[in-house]
Amino acid sequence: MEQLFTAARTHNGWLDKEVPDSLLELALDYAKWGPTSANCSPLRVVFVRSNEAKARLGPAMSPGNHDKTMAAPATAIIGYDLDFHEHLPVLYPAADAKSWFAGNDALIEETAFRNGTLQAGYFILSLRAVGLDVGPMSGFDKAKVDAEFFVGTKIRSNFLINIGYGDSSKLYPRGPRFAFEDMARII
Amino acid sequence: MEQLFTAARTHNGWLDKEVPDSLLELALDYAKWGPTSANCSPLRVVFVRSNEAKARLGPAMSPGNHDKTMAAPATAIIGYDLDFHEHLPVLYPAADAKSWFAGNDALIEETAFRNGTLQAGYFILSLRAVGLDVGPMSGFDKAKVDAEFFVGTKIRSNFLINIGYGDSSKLYPRGPRFAFEDMARII
Repeated sequence: MEQLFTAARTHNGWLDKEVPDSLLELALDYAKWGPTSANCSPLRVVFVRSNEAKARLGPAMSPGNHDKTMAAPATAIIGYDLDFHEHLPVLYPAADAKSWFAGNDALIEETAFRNGTLQAGYFILSLRAVGLDVGPMSGFDKAKVDAEFFVGTKIRSNFLINIGYGDSSKLYPRGPRFAFEDMARII
Repeated sequence: MEQLFTAARTHNGWLDKEVPDSLLELALDYAKWGPTSANCSPLRVVFVRSNEAKARLGPAMSPGNHDKTMAAPATAIIGYDLDFHEHLPVLYPAADAKSWFAGNDALIEETAFRNGTLQAGYFILSLRAVGLDVGPMSGFDKAKVDAEFFVGTKIRSNFLINIGYGDSSKLYPRGPRFAFEDMARII
């Protein structure tokens, strides 16, 4: 639980330590088993690793997120696919789930955003479970990222995750969290 | 990893085995340490446990989700607080983060939904990590739940999670998942 939750931190600086592609694949292959509604599985990920790909991502970053993103061993663009329902005949053969969504753009958007984000939560923890550190970020230009990496698809960017082995000397002080009774009640 | 991802299943039936409140509190107290943007922590949870509370929830359930929800030892109403930014001076003292949101309802909604859902993803896995099983559901009437459990607040329901010790004899066949290359690429 320390590695996943209580001791893990959001990192802003990265050690010069190799992150193999195989470890990123392993983490995503764990995360994909987490539950989504009707197994809709809308999460899509682009791992930005090469200098060429980082150069395409750079102009979309907000100033405070630019340098640490360019320095990270990998940056995952977390997206969700608005065409997810096209795969439901395979992913959820028990019912005609595709027909629940086709033509209902509001339900498609809400379902893709909710379940794609849930899967991203699983992925953040599976990255930590395989020993990596993460730095998730919302500060970037989504339209620019979509135009650069998802053109010609119905995939939309959600947020970004810098991935590597964190440099603990660059951590900020940890923010407080709510007490149980300030975020929950049992009735 | 088996307990969190690969062996864990979405459950529809529940063993007659006591789930102490303390275990629900423990799981949420782990999950709250997961990252959110500017530590905004919008997740709010109502644990529906008593017969009286279950009777208030019942009319909001879709037919296919009603009976298993009434039978579950606990049902967590996963909500997100559209007033989350009021807490940012405490949660994120490093900057005037409250001012980034105040008056921007679209950004508030998007941020609360994204980060509240991320926290819910952490919570699903922390429930599994403390040994419990889960059955998340989107099939219910959100307006009814909001009116019954969140009236007078800016908290909105997101989805529900049945919680207990799962009855494996009532599992459906497991749905397939994408291969890595069908959901991700490395560039």
